[in-house]
Amino acid sequence: MQETRRALHEILAHLQGTSKKLRKRQVDSFIKALLSAKRVFVVGAGRSGLVVRAFAMRLMHLGIDIHVIGETITPAPRADDLLVALSGSGETSFAVSAAKIAKRVGTKIVVITSYPRSTLAKLADHIVTLPGRTKIASIKSYLDRQIVGEYESLAPLGTLFEITALVFLDSVVASLMTKLGRKEEELRARHATIE
Amino acid sequence: MQETRRALHEILAHLQGTSKKLRKRQVDSFIKALLSAKRVFVVGAGRSGLVVRAFAMRLMHLGIDIHVIGETITPAPRADDLLVALSGSGETSFAVSAAKIAKRVGTKIVVITSYPRSTLAKLADHIVTLPGRTKIASIKSYLDRQIVGEYESLAPLGTLFEITALVFLDSVVASLMTKLGRKEEELRARHATIE
Amino acid sequence: MQETRRALHEILAHLQGTSKKLRKRQVDSFIKALLSAKRVFVVGAGRSGLVVRAFAMRLMHLGIDIHVIGETITPAPRADDLLVALSGSGETSFAVSAAKIAKRVGTKIVVITSYPRSTLAKLADHIVTLPGRTKIASIKSYLDRQIVGEYESLAPLGTLFEITALVFLDSVVASLMTKLGRKEEELRARHATIE
Amino acid sequence: MQETRRALHEILAHLQGTSKKLRKRQVDSFIKALLSAKRVFVVGAGRSGLVVRAFAMRLMHLGIDIHVIGETITPAPRADDLLVALSGSGETSFAVSAAKIAKRVGTKIVVITSYPRSTLAKLADHIVTLPGRTKIASIKSYLDRQIVGEYESLAPLGTLFEITALVFLDSVVASLMTKLGRKEEELRARHATIE
Repeated sequence: MQETRRALHEILAHLQGTSKKLRKRQVDSFIKALLSAKRVFVVGAGRSGLVVRAFAMRLMHLGIDIHVIGETITPAPRADDLLVALSGSGETSFAVSAAKIAKRVGTKIVVITSYPRSTLAKLADHIVTLPGRTKIASIKSYLDRQIVGEYESLAPLGTLFEITALVFLDSVVASLMTKLGRKEEELRARHATIE
Repeated sequence: MQETRRALHEILAHLQGTSKKLRKRQVDSFIKALLSAKRVFVVGAGRSGLVVRAFAMRLMHLGIDIHVIGETITPAPRADDLLVALSGSGETSFAVSAAKIAKRVGTKIVVITSYPRSTLAKLADHIVTLPGRTKIASIKSYLDRQIVGEYESLAPLGTLFEITALVFLDSVVASLMTKLGRKEEELRARHATIE
Repeated sequence: MQETRRALHEILAHLQGTSKKLRKRQVDSFIKALLSAKRVFVVGAGRSGLVVRAFAMRLMHLGIDIHVIGETITPAPRADDLLVALSGSGETSFAVSAAKIAKRVGTKIVVITSYPRSTLAKLADHIVTLPGRTKIASIKSYLDRQIVGEYESLAPLGTLFEITALVFLDSVVASLMTKLGRKEEELRARHATIE
Repeated sequence: MQETRRALHEILAHLQGTSKKLRKRQVDSFIKALLSAKRVFVVGAGRSGLVVRAFAMRLMHLGIDIHVIGETITPAPRADDLLVALSGSGETSFAVSAAKIAKRVGTKIVVITSYPRSTLAKLADHIVTLPGRTKIASIKSYLDRQIVGEYESLAPLGTLFEITALVFLDSVVASLMTKLGRKEEELRARHATIE
């Protein structure tokens, strides 16, 4: 339990930092791109792939024409569509090759990553930078005053990026709800009744 | 190799039998239902789930508004939609519960099964009966004259039903292509370029 | 951007509350059950299904024999296995029917839910209660002092539960790492190189 | 119905041709590779991805340690593992990049394709050639004597290859059952009870 709580606090501290680091211009461009696209495609691999799927479900609930790269009924993206690619490192081959193919047909690309100089980021029309883990976590937890100084991170691999991305994307959903004037009841009506 | 070929011949013999057993009325009703639905939903579990996904991809290529129950962006079906449920036994709980929920909102239901008296079939507006395996295969292979008499089937569990369903559904796609006047080039244009 | 930040703060406030509400006995039982099972199965539908998949990936990285209900290579659970079912409402039919079938063969069941009296929770050997959304959010954000009093939640449907579950399960992963003595390098070695 | 039956006959004629074109050496090498691998990984995109999943399910039923590239709990392949890559064209980027990564760590690769000179085939340790569609189908259906001469194929895109691959792989399952001495009851015991 102790380790569980310590890890939870490390994650919370990271998320709090994220809130401060969000750049208004990046977020506004992303939301504008989502609202002006004819169709939205999302792509990600591994746990980032799960996070973009969670985002895609809410976009579907909002009534946006949304597709997940790699799923059964996903068509070919075109020039008036938007591709949202999520990758902490910005080097995931599946996302990079999707972005390359999409770029060729003129699809606009938003890349959400910790590395704004990555291969994926270089393909982007818009970038949203989200902080991933610093190599050695030296976070002074504001929640648990007993844990100070340096310690090995309890959130292995891409964990912090993936959680940050889910929280960020769900916050973007809130903006979209407001801008589209959608009420929760409308979302519920589109929510899968069979699952 | 010998067993591989013997199994292949058993499967071919089964498929040949299927061709003769298809009922015109059932097939025509199914095709009509596909063409008159606003949106088509498909459901199946296990290997039958894979077969309905293969069918769903082609319906997407044909420009039909199609969704796979259980995937990320699948909305709730409504009264003017069609649910196509595939289950050899007609008792798969996932398909049965999907059909029950769909029926409640007035979605029309087509059931493709070997058992026209199954729980699933009883929920159907239209049934397509496809032959599965007879318990002991006593098929005289028309291809391999050396194999005659009774032998244990080389196609375990639902194999024969699943293959039959894929071949049947791909044949239905051919009918839809003709009726919708779609050329292969149009299908190719919708085919996922990123996968 | 303003709405995005407000939603982000609502989510953070919720997560902070979660940290306080975690019950040591529940968390310890869950971790013990994970470590003593022969194989672990996870089940969830919709966004909860994505969250349990994210958890399953990390369990695989830890070297635990893990399966996701509904995926291709998932076998039948047995008596010495553990089923982890995630559902905010505890009423999701897919998770409930999975738990019923598992219970029949003697598989131990952990249910993670906001509703400890739900249908799913009644099937559980162990429960972990995670707070979901209160119907009207009256959270005084500790981060954004300007937002006080009651307001409509910016996190629609199960959003708060799903994020909380991901953060909690990733925190449990930290405990498992420590108890199993796994280093991050070992996790990385098992991490899919092809995705 | 008429088109449905004509398409069905075209598919059957193609499958019959396949049976004759199977090369004993290729099939025997494939089966031997499957039986001697520590773990088997399968990869395919689109409908080929569904076909390899159907194969993977049966390998799981047979008790073979099997993983599907791209699914949740798939680890990194290693030198003593086998990768089975399915692609009609042999050029599908997802399968090609999987094979490249696998080759780097020494994983053995079997490629099942219609194009033995494709990019994917060049990465293979073993190839199984399966006939796809000839550009203009000039098949004299042996089943329906009324259809003779040339006509536009009723099986668009990769349909014939995908069906052929499913039938072939299910036939290989029969060989594996015999060689491993598995009875259908054993397969049924491993078959997912929750789906």
